[in-house]
Amino acid sequence: MYNQKTYALGSKRSTIREIFEYAKKRSAEIGAENVFDFSIGNPSVPAPDEVNAAIERIVKEMPSVELHGYTSAQGDKQVRDEIARKYSERFDVKLSGDDLYMTCGAAASLTITLHALACEGDEFIVFAPFFPEYRVFVTGTGSKFTVLPSDESTMLPDFDALEKALNPHVKGIIINSPNNPSGVVYDGVTIARLAEILQQKSEEYGAPIYLISDEPYRELVYDKDTVVPSVMKYYANSIVCYSYSKSLSMPGERIGYIAVNPEATDAKAVYFSVCGAGRMLGFVCAPALFQRVAAECDGLTADLSVYKRNRDLLYNALTDYGFTCIYPDGAFYLFVKAAEADAAAFCERAKKHELLLVNGADFGYPGWVRIAYCVQTERIERALPLFKALAEEYSLI
Amino acid sequence: MYNQKTYALGSKRSTIREIFEYAKKRSAEIGAENVFDFSIGNPSVPAPDEVNAAIERIVKEMPSVELHGYTSAQGDKQVRDEIARKYSERFDVKLSGDDLYMTCGAAASLTITLHALACEGDEFIVFAPFFPEYRVFVTGTGSKFTVLPSDESTMLPDFDALEKALNPHVKGIIINSPNNPSGVVYDGVTIARLAEILQQKSEEYGAPIYLISDEPYRELVYDKDTVVPSVMKYYANSIVCYSYSKSLSMPGERIGYIAVNPEATDAKAVYFSVCGAGRMLGFVCAPALFQRVAAECDGLTADLSVYKRNRDLLYNALTDYGFTCIYPDGAFYLFVKAAEADAAAFCERAKKHELLLVNGADFGYPGWVRIAYCVQTERIERALPLFKALAEEYSLI
Repeated sequence: MYNQKTYALGSKRSTIREIFEYAKKRSAEIGAENVFDFSIGNPSVPAPDEVNAAIERIVKEMPSVELHGYTSAQGDKQVRDEIARKYSERFDVKLSGDDLYMTCGAAASLTITLHALACEGDEFIVFAPFFPEYRVFVTGTGSKFTVLPSDESTMLPDFDALEKALNPHVKGIIINSPNNPSGVVYDGVTIARLAEILQQKSEEYGAPIYLISDEPYRELVYDKDTVVPSVMKYYANSIVCYSYSKSLSMPGERIGYIAVNPEATDAKAVYFSVCGAGRMLGFVCAPALFQRVAAECDGLTADLSVYKRNRDLLYNALTDYGFTCIYPDGAFYLFVKAAEADAAAFCERAKKHELLLVNGADFGYPGWVRIAYCVQTERIERALPLFKALAEEYSLI
Repeated sequence: MYNQKTYALGSKRSTIREIFEYAKKRSAEIGAENVFDFSIGNPSVPAPDEVNAAIERIVKEMPSVELHGYTSAQGDKQVRDEIARKYSERFDVKLSGDDLYMTCGAAASLTITLHALACEGDEFIVFAPFFPEYRVFVTGTGSKFTVLPSDESTMLPDFDALEKALNPHVKGIIINSPNNPSGVVYDGVTIARLAEILQQKSEEYGAPIYLISDEPYRELVYDKDTVVPSVMKYYANSIVCYSYSKSLSMPGERIGYIAVNPEATDAKAVYFSVCGAGRMLGFVCAPALFQRVAAECDGLTADLSVYKRNRDLLYNALTDYGFTCIYPDGAFYLFVKAAEADAAAFCERAKKHELLLVNGADFGYPGWVRIAYCVQTERIERALPLFKALAEEYSLI
């Protein structure tokens, strides 16, 4: 009667939704101030003031028919030129507005890119831990979804596993740095190694293997020596999927872009395929007002000092208490090894302390849990004694 | 290397784009004021003042994190409740916010609905003339796309053809009223007859055939006795795909909705399937600010008197000149029979008079042309002598 696959996707509650509902129920019982929901990756810091200022100014200045009218399907030309100019300057590459396709956010960037590339029988690879919607997006194109391991001490890709897994059906690899859920940033050395392997295998198979870089957290890094390199500097057949959701704290407004590396094999054709995929999936143009807001505010960020403070507080305390944590260079997640083999059981114990965490199994990484620290700092301060009690229960201290 | 289907969709210039480029070139030669581009269906009337007022007020009043944050995937609950309340009141049906799924405009409403319904081997039916993207959206789900004729004098569905074409593989019929390109509105009698046939065949096959009603032009009707009925009053297995693009003159902002008739068989499951399809295609939530603007401005329209004046002027003059025209109850298109059998040749002759029209073949209806009258009235006034000269050339006068 209706499609069973989409029904399954729409009817099954996500873990995070389950936790959200539990938090609501529990809050009614013991007060919201006593329930610590670390499950949701939703920016907790307001958008920079420039966002609302830009909205108000553009609405005042631009004639309505032009402002609220269609832009071209790939996005307003001036918007694309401006964003490409800033990107090129920042990353020292030669990107033009004609390499950019404005999208309704990171999810759209990914589905459009995947549909533009996927042919029958194709396969896409990710490294665990990974953002779970990748599976939905990849299988939505009819392609095979393959998960490879990361090194447990660094959460960086296992290159041996990659070399073994690559085969002529692999159309692309999706990477995500800074990573959700680990917070790890792929440095230049990692990307160079990845590029080297992909280059060699592409040549061997006589067809490009694309490197799809999902970068919604690109601006969210906290130490002055942490650099998020552009994959375009390292690998020709690369496509950057970006969103302003996290950098500008406006995930609800759905604005981002796809940048096709102009050095890619048949880059123009790949770009056209992106345009066609957007059309086929029902994306006419990205929201017009927010295209202009994004171009104007590109390069700004919400106040990241809050996330940094939260990260430092949480990472330092939890390692002090004896938990094994991955040091998060960026994003707003801390990835913590469960204090017993079964992370689900660990989450249940944490829950008894009113700490709501997400099982790493949801990210393809059993035995670990994710803590989203995009919350008020006060919430973390008040949660620390509870984490301490949890550590004591496991005799970590 | 990349997907050939999406490449073809993205690389082939549309007819309207070709005309746009020609108009630009021709304008440079003889002055923009002397070139009459009637090809583009883009609102020419500003959004009602309430749209910008709502944007400014909401931006001032709502805290940033809440305003620009994610709404739930199906849309903000208050927004959905408000829109459903207004819809129910206006059309005398019982629609609740839980039957509504907010989308990024009409194209998204359609792709999500089609992916939610389509199973392997399915078929969807449209009546010519039809909006050409329907073909892209339907074949994008892997389904068969079937075009049936309309009666040439009324541009209403040929019901005999429908009865013959229906078979157990048909999952749905897409209708579009007021129609692009004919401007015709399906009245209650037409929808009742359609419902009757679909009901009978659904029972015969033991599975619902969905009536998908694409209604971006619903509010654009010009005579006080023209009523656009709600399909929900006539047929249980109906789904309304709506967009605020035309009613509020904000097509660039990408905001609309899907309304699943709560009377449909397994309505809740169909709704879940819609949610799942949205997720699979990469729609996280509809743009948050514009969800709220839409809820607040639902029921308002841009100044339709301009379109009405244009329609009257154009329809009266062209019929006077001897052209056969379909009387357009709504939308902003006039569908005109080409004055020779070959509409492409007719368009070329019109071009010599600096009149740029779209060949009906693009809408699956050869022998006719579409004139989009969403332009400044002055443009129509100045074009009339050229249409007259064209009529004289064909000895229609």
